[in-house]
Amino acid sequence: MPPVPSDDRGLTLGDGLFETVLAKGGALVLLDAHLARLARGCAELGLPAPDLDAARVLMAQAAEPGPRIAVRLTVTAGSGGRGVDRPAAPALRMIATSAPAPLPEGPARLATSTVRRNAGSPASRLKTLAYLDNVLARREARAAGADEALMLNGAGEAACAAVANIFWIKGGRLFTPALDCGVLAGVMRAEVMAIAGRRGVEVREVRSSPAAILEADGAFLTSSLVGVRPVCELDGVGLGEDPLIEAFGAAVRDAGLA
Amino acid sequence: MPPVPSDDRGLTLGDGLFETVLAKGGALVLLDAHLARLARGCAELGLPAPDLDAARVLMAQAAEPGPRIAVRLTVTAGSGGRGVDRPAAPALRMIATSAPAPLPEGPARLATSTVRRNAGSPASRLKTLAYLDNVLARREARAAGADEALMLNGAGEAACAAVANIFWIKGGRLFTPALDCGVLAGVMRAEVMAIAGRRGVEVREVRSSPAAILEADGAFLTSSLVGVRPVCELDGVGLGEDPLIEAFGAAVRDAGLA
Repeated sequence: MPPVPSDDRGLTLGDGLFETVLAKGGALVLLDAHLARLARGCAELGLPAPDLDAARVLMAQAAEPGPRIAVRLTVTAGSGGRGVDRPAAPALRMIATSAPAPLPEGPARLATSTVRRNAGSPASRLKTLAYLDNVLARREARAAGADEALMLNGAGEAACAAVANIFWIKGGRLFTPALDCGVLAGVMRAEVMAIAGRRGVEVREVRSSPAAILEADGAFLTSSLVGVRPVCELDGVGLGEDPLIEAFGAAVRDAGLA
Repeated sequence: MPPVPSDDRGLTLGDGLFETVLAKGGALVLLDAHLARLARGCAELGLPAPDLDAARVLMAQAAEPGPRIAVRLTVTAGSGGRGVDRPAAPALRMIATSAPAPLPEGPARLATSTVRRNAGSPASRLKTLAYLDNVLARREARAAGADEALMLNGAGEAACAAVANIFWIKGGRLFTPALDCGVLAGVMRAEVMAIAGRRGVEVREVRSSPAAILEADGAFLTSSLVGVRPVCELDGVGLGEDPLIEAFGAAVRDAGLA
């Protein structure tokens, strides 16, 4: 991919967004949902509308044939402006890259991160280039011997993993943190909620202490690259294996979404 | 400046730091303090120690002669890694750029931003490449007809401006938000506190409601590029002009710091 000028606002300020889409045999999974989220994010950040046709072309070019490829579209606010002030008419810059996306081995062990989600910023609900908190949370989880972080928000409520949404099951109901907890509106999160709706499984979007996860019958992560991944452990405490976890994992696989 | 590869983690994830230093006639003001902060920031983010000699060379090259030039050093976590996970041995990438740094005209009018500082992340106390919240806060302030934002933290406490620290004066004492409110450890903030100490002016680092600023005898912003800038207005309410504001402004100018 072409390099980026050193005055790009994505580089200098994290001023931009990205999407990561799974490509299977060259086909981009749930592409429309990703592009719709990108357009909503640009509007929310006050950026011009992205050229979605151009995005499709770039991403199709990056989607090499192969069983599981991650195609990343990076959209920056472009060059220019003075300091944090954007130029009067920002010209977005778009880049597509690809990398292998192997499935992780086994269920996830989570460690609660000290790095909190900022529910007081719209960026906490978007996939922005200012992703450093997620980098730091994952790093802390790895240092604790875990695979992934459980991130809380400033109020101490459960929010999400470093690069995934989280669900838990209790009494046959599905629970997941509400978006206003500081949670990315995950494409796979929405798919799992839709599957639950079709199967008559009640889903509650909640503001909840992380203790609810420890008291649950089981928990799982969702992301576009992985689909559904069971959580076996939170801070060293083993979690249950409610059969709904495997049911949702199978539903996502059967629909070709992961 | 050379472009940056599209897989640079500064671009893709905001994984890195920057410093902005005032150059006057080619001389970099308070350079040692900026480089010391950069080194502390790299340590706090778990990045390798930056090559400060190389940084000095790059910044000196960028410091064109001229009355007021802003020299920016951008230090990214470099290329590589898998998703948010850094490579085992990150190789930092350093870039220096420059731009004119004219003094702003007149005092600042502040508007309180809805975008909050994330006191629950170490990034809130560092000058990281994940600077989007500051971009959004400034944008909101401009839309409200102001020059700069007053940012609160998640607890609703006064924190800072989008690109400056804030002080206020009450009864001859100086007040400024404590760093653990989610505040950058500003180089000019530290200089002003040192000047106050030498002059026998008491400084209190506080957790405070923004109402304290409205009830103060005056307020000012500090930053490396501007020095001391009086605040004349917060959310449309006029603020006082305590003579200490001009005294600190003059002290910073007389020391050649702005």
